[in-house]
Amino acid sequence: MTPLSVAFVGSDSGTWTIERMDAVAGEPLPPARGLTVLEGPAARRLPEEADWALRGVTSNERYVTREEHDALEALQQGLGRPQATCSALIPIRKSQAWWDLSQDERRHLFEERSRHVAIGLDFLPAIARRLHHGRDLGEPFDFLTWFEFAPADAGVFDELVGRLRRTEEWSYVEREVDIRLTR
Amino acid sequence: MTPLSVAFVGSDSGTWTIERMDAVAGEPLPPARGLTVLEGPAARRLPEEADWALRGVTSNERYVTREEHDALEALQQGLGRPQATCSALIPIRKSQAWWDLSQDERRHLFEERSRHVAIGLDFLPAIARRLHHGRDLGEPFDFLTWFEFAPADAGVFDELVGRLRRTEEWSYVEREVDIRLTR
Repeated sequence: MTPLSVAFVGSDSGTWTIERMDAVAGEPLPPARGLTVLEGPAARRLPEEADWALRGVTSNERYVTREEHDALEALQQGLGRPQATCSALIPIRKSQAWWDLSQDERRHLFEERSRHVAIGLDFLPAIARRLHHGRDLGEPFDFLTWFEFAPADAGVFDELVGRLRRTEEWSYVEREVDIRLTR
Repeated sequence: MTPLSVAFVGSDSGTWTIERMDAVAGEPLPPARGLTVLEGPAARRLPEEADWALRGVTSNERYVTREEHDALEALQQGLGRPQATCSALIPIRKSQAWWDLSQDERRHLFEERSRHVAIGLDFLPAIARRLHHGRDLGEPFDFLTWFEFAPADAGVFDELVGRLRRTEEWSYVEREVDIRLTR
């Protein structure tokens, strides 16, 4: 995949209505009522009325094996499904201790210890997902994960984030905001 | 390591004098006589007289195991050694086929097939090195590697790049420029 720049812009209005913003760990974000998702060159020209903007870039995979990739790809759905009128934006920052680990140590924590991929697979195809990386851009969050799902799957989504937050991997999360939206 | 933004700026003059610029694969860069290395916030304000500027960011490790990391760390030297008056900047872009591989496939090509770390270890402590990532920044090169060494080790450095270019990993390199400098 060619990296795609994306900006999530919080302001008074937007394509998505913000229903809730919870600071799960660390500092909250300033309040906003709506969210707009800008992609590609548009992500560089931010609207003046923005309350905040979080940027990230889709990138190559960092931990997933070929077998896991193929299992995910066989089940996962794209963004923009008509029935997926609920979404969540979960910005996360991991600790210095995480980033100081070597690649094999991070992989071991990610999957062999925490089952990140295996948990995600349990929620396909209901929950669509796109990951954006911000750390190398100098952004306050290392990852911005965007999820889309139907209203009937909102409880299922709560179960997904609950299971991930109980993993060993999550002990390295030092800042997390959970933003829930509808359109 | 916290990501550090770096810009390599080619112009009429600079801290480093450009001795040679060879297009090893793909498009060359426009000619320049000098190079300046800007770091941190300074990397965002480019001098007006620049002929070109290449940007990257130091980042977390992507392939190296803990054992390999410790072996490298025990031997490698930092930048700025007084006797290291020779340097090289080697910008590289890999093919879409490389980026479409999964993490385990890229790791296998990088080390088990191509011995990238093992080859590098053979040239420590003579050759100091810093890697910068540009792909997620939308830069024309995926990697900018900066090397520093003493004039007496210039032949040794040629051997290092020669060995790397003969690896299977290098069959995925679609653009490479080799810039040699002195100060």
